[in-house]
Amino acid sequence: MPKLPDPTKNPDYVIAEAAEEFMQPIKKIADDLGLTEEELLPHGHYVAKVDYKKVLERLKDRPDGKYIDVTAITPTPLGEGKSTSTMGLVEGMGKLGLKVTAAIRQPSGGPTMNIKGSAAGGGLAQCVPLTPFSLGLTGDINAIMNAHNLAMVALNTRLQHERNYNDEQLERLSGMKRLNIDPTNIEMGWIIDFCCQGLRNIVMGLGGRRDGFLMQSRFGIAVSSEVMAILAVAKDLKDMRERMGKIVVAYDRAGKPITTEDLEVAGAMTAWMNEALNPNLLQTIEGQPVFVHAGPFANIAIGQSSILADRCALKLSDYHVTESGFGADIGFEKFWNLKCRYSGLKPHCAVVVATIRALKCHGGAPIPVPGKPMPKEYQGENVEWVEKGCANLLHHIATVKSAGINPVVCVNSFYTDTPNEIAAVKRLCEAAGARVAVSRHWEKGGEGAIEFAEAVKDACEEENQFKLLYELETPLRQRLDLIAKQVYGADGVDYSPEAEAKAKKIEADPELSKLGTCMVKTHLSLSDNPNLKGVPKNWRLYIRDILTYGGAGFVVPVAGTISLMPGSGSNPAFRRIDVDTDSGKVKGIF
Amino acid sequence: MPKLPDPTKNPDYVIAEAAEEFMQPIKKIADDLGLTEEELLPHGHYVAKVDYKKVLERLKDRPDGKYIDVTAITPTPLGEGKSTSTMGLVEGMGKLGLKVTAAIRQPSGGPTMNIKGSAAGGGLAQCVPLTPFSLGLTGDINAIMNAHNLAMVALNTRLQHERNYNDEQLERLSGMKRLNIDPTNIEMGWIIDFCCQGLRNIVMGLGGRRDGFLMQSRFGIAVSSEVMAILAVAKDLKDMRERMGKIVVAYDRAGKPITTEDLEVAGAMTAWMNEALNPNLLQTIEGQPVFVHAGPFANIAIGQSSILADRCALKLSDYHVTESGFGADIGFEKFWNLKCRYSGLKPHCAVVVATIRALKCHGGAPIPVPGKPMPKEYQGENVEWVEKGCANLLHHIATVKSAGINPVVCVNSFYTDTPNEIAAVKRLCEAAGARVAVSRHWEKGGEGAIEFAEAVKDACEEENQFKLLYELETPLRQRLDLIAKQVYGADGVDYSPEAEAKAKKIEADPELSKLGTCMVKTHLSLSDNPNLKGVPKNWRLYIRDILTYGGAGFVVPVAGTISLMPGSGSNPAFRRIDVDTDSGKVKGIF
Repeated sequence: MPKLPDPTKNPDYVIAEAAEEFMQPIKKIADDLGLTEEELLPHGHYVAKVDYKKVLERLKDRPDGKYIDVTAITPTPLGEGKSTSTMGLVEGMGKLGLKVTAAIRQPSGGPTMNIKGSAAGGGLAQCVPLTPFSLGLTGDINAIMNAHNLAMVALNTRLQHERNYNDEQLERLSGMKRLNIDPTNIEMGWIIDFCCQGLRNIVMGLGGRRDGFLMQSRFGIAVSSEVMAILAVAKDLKDMRERMGKIVVAYDRAGKPITTEDLEVAGAMTAWMNEALNPNLLQTIEGQPVFVHAGPFANIAIGQSSILADRCALKLSDYHVTESGFGADIGFEKFWNLKCRYSGLKPHCAVVVATIRALKCHGGAPIPVPGKPMPKEYQGENVEWVEKGCANLLHHIATVKSAGINPVVCVNSFYTDTPNEIAAVKRLCEAAGARVAVSRHWEKGGEGAIEFAEAVKDACEEENQFKLLYELETPLRQRLDLIAKQVYGADGVDYSPEAEAKAKKIEADPELSKLGTCMVKTHLSLSDNPNLKGVPKNWRLYIRDILTYGGAGFVVPVAGTISLMPGSGSNPAFRRIDVDTDSGKVKGIF
Repeated sequence: MPKLPDPTKNPDYVIAEAAEEFMQPIKKIADDLGLTEEELLPHGHYVAKVDYKKVLERLKDRPDGKYIDVTAITPTPLGEGKSTSTMGLVEGMGKLGLKVTAAIRQPSGGPTMNIKGSAAGGGLAQCVPLTPFSLGLTGDINAIMNAHNLAMVALNTRLQHERNYNDEQLERLSGMKRLNIDPTNIEMGWIIDFCCQGLRNIVMGLGGRRDGFLMQSRFGIAVSSEVMAILAVAKDLKDMRERMGKIVVAYDRAGKPITTEDLEVAGAMTAWMNEALNPNLLQTIEGQPVFVHAGPFANIAIGQSSILADRCALKLSDYHVTESGFGADIGFEKFWNLKCRYSGLKPHCAVVVATIRALKCHGGAPIPVPGKPMPKEYQGENVEWVEKGCANLLHHIATVKSAGINPVVCVNSFYTDTPNEIAAVKRLCEAAGARVAVSRHWEKGGEGAIEFAEAVKDACEEENQFKLLYELETPLRQRLDLIAKQVYGADGVDYSPEAEAKAKKIEADPELSKLGTCMVKTHLSLSDNPNLKGVPKNWRLYIRDILTYGGAGFVVPVAGTISLMPGSGSNPAFRRIDVDTDSGKVKGIF
């Protein structure tokens, strides 16, 4: 391994660019992983898709590897390095000589162009090549955008034609039967993969008789689409096709759901998604295979890497590390009660990533703001804040334990952390029955993650009793009460009148009542208020709306004021992104 | 070559699917074409991108092959098989043992999901694999969508921030200088790659202070985007980067253009387009290499395959066949006066494709309607209609001749054509000094196109004197007069007051006056009225608006009532598209 730029002095994209000079062709990574030439669908020389169907058929009798989830404490707006730690863990396991894979989520163009960073990890623990990873990869999110928006095209033009023609004319034109869609009761909006607050609320269909149907509508960010959720949970193409037809687009005048199948668009939507179902394969800076599949944002979406990526990886390796977004309250809770429920897979251990920076924030330091300098309070040692902030970490450890599996705390160490601060974390977590590993993968790559890798390996050997938090028979409001109290630490749940009416309707419906629950809630607090740090007490979760994702197989209660379309800030990242026209390299993705 | 299904009895996608069983890996096609392994960027096993930069550098001293454009008479709404004839011609040249390539345009999802058909050719003259070709290929159109819409995100959020903050706050937030954008004078809209009349006119930015900027806006179809035009005409990455910064998004309150560079978004837009600049490589059913790059719709866009695809292909083959959309009045006129002007390449011959069906339509038969049965008038022989309809064909032959190159008429023969009908076409065209070849590639592949291939080969050997129709010094209205009279057969040009004001402003501007001219006009008539067939007389071209595409390098006069966003009909193609979940194959793309 050649010497890479020093992470303490260089932005991530500079390190990635240097590492890419020595990257192995994806063909070599695939060969080492045991994939056949037929199973590998190359996209250029360093990225590929993997034919999940061929892999799962060929290896159906091979036992699965160990299954490790990576989650985190409640993050600051800067992120706590969950992807970095996932990359660091597989690099560390690679140093131990273990056959290991990772699965992470494809980043959304929204944060990449706005503020968040590359989502490929950081420092010497990154997924490469960085540019395709960050800018659309093999096109899965675009496929989702096309599939999803095609349903909206079908909806709006159907409304136009049903307005313009009587039953006899509709029949004669195209054998179309009137659906009687209620234009005031539309469930679905459009999507685009950028942060664009100006598209949150639109009026469309202005003009004349042939200019569509006049209605209010909205755009959400692409990764919050139900089609993305379907990609994350689909078992195979047949399952995806069935789910694609069950998306509720609107309701008719009698209140009955109008689905994508009713609009005769589900087959074409699946056609757009056909290739996207195959997981993507990349590599860490140190050459371990990394699957990248499905999308982020466990706050406003399921936010998990796909079941298919995990299933392939578990057949191909002895240890597979998958990532679930943000803190254990939302990312892990959805991994636990949605993804594992649908896949039937049982994790062997869960890593809870923490940084000293975030612990200080939970302990009382001011909340850092992306794009601004770190508040001076973060300079120098402050053991008291760290100790106080550990309450948040201990809460997430308890959540992992209540799923019946063993937590490993990873202190994602920064070179400014002090021995006293780290000792405090170790003491408190070990007292709570969790393994703790301090890891320096950001600074040192796999060499810095040996302790971490060994702790995870040990945890995988231990007995565990994985169990779901709720059964699908549990009525919706009772389920929400359970999640709110046990996972978030709330005193209970309140509902807007609209949300309450929807909850009652769902509980009374024989099909809807059996769907899973995928909460939309801020990731920046255990509560629904992003400004409350640590473990907020004396609060009630406020549910303002409940969406139905009939295809993905869950209802989506929306908590607090969070929006499905983030906004772009006043200093967006796109200002700093450009292409070097001599080398052809993209610069400025941080 | 194994036996393929009979085109007279099977839809195109059934033939394509059978042919795909025997397709060669794209690696083999590339090897035969003389591409190195480094120059080929595979996307799966049967599609690849070609690294244009490496190819052009390596072969810079090799002389170019012969350059052949394929255009057509004024088509019926069913299309006259220009892509089919392009594929047929290269298959025929292949049978002659010539080293030949084609370049066609990537289809838009709009027509594919609505009504038009596959755009990959038809019968035994098709480009394969059909499914990726038809559904987004390697993602170029999606990249255009992301790049284009990112500029709109930048515009709307900038308007929000400039509304919400004073100069001092803007400076402090992000070093932002007020651009003073005039919200009533916005040049650019959003794009999406579907036919969606309901998005033609929208109001966006409803909500509060942080929900964007309230303004009217619009969506056009993706292929009409200026970013698509830039992809078609860019010479290299540096040229694309420069053009990307010159897109006029809006005007400030003093009437000065606000560009993508002013919005600090041009670098990031280029980053999204970086990979798309490499042309895609596929193959004909008979194994000739086919480049697919840039987009269709010469009616509402430049509608040409890319300059880079042609430049690479001309270095790699002895005969290169490129396609320019629709009739010679729009597709060929833009090939001639825009594409060849920017590339500096000189064509050796132009093929004018005609069908007996379209000639009958121009001669008086009822206009066929897509999705409906053919009118009974098209059954059986009708020499009179064919002869009368040849006026349209002769007009287009004259257009090709006025460019100084030799026309070859290809009668794209259907098995129902009669010898008398074909003899009439031959007689009239040969009298007008054009070679005529009858080609049965649709029914018989390359074997049916031998006569056609030989006629084109002969025409390439002849002297020709390629010259442009106008110089960039010619004032805009004078240029439009020339195009309208000479190419369309109009008596002159009329302007809406708005268009006239813009024309004067453009003529007076030292930079804008030197841009090229890319007309938006219906392809269904030589005139601006789609219902007028043959060679319409006694009419004046009506220009209702003029757009400025500063990055692509042309102004866009908009004639008649044509819209940049087509509508979806009452019997859209997506109804019939689905995926066979056992085989994984997409069905129903006609």
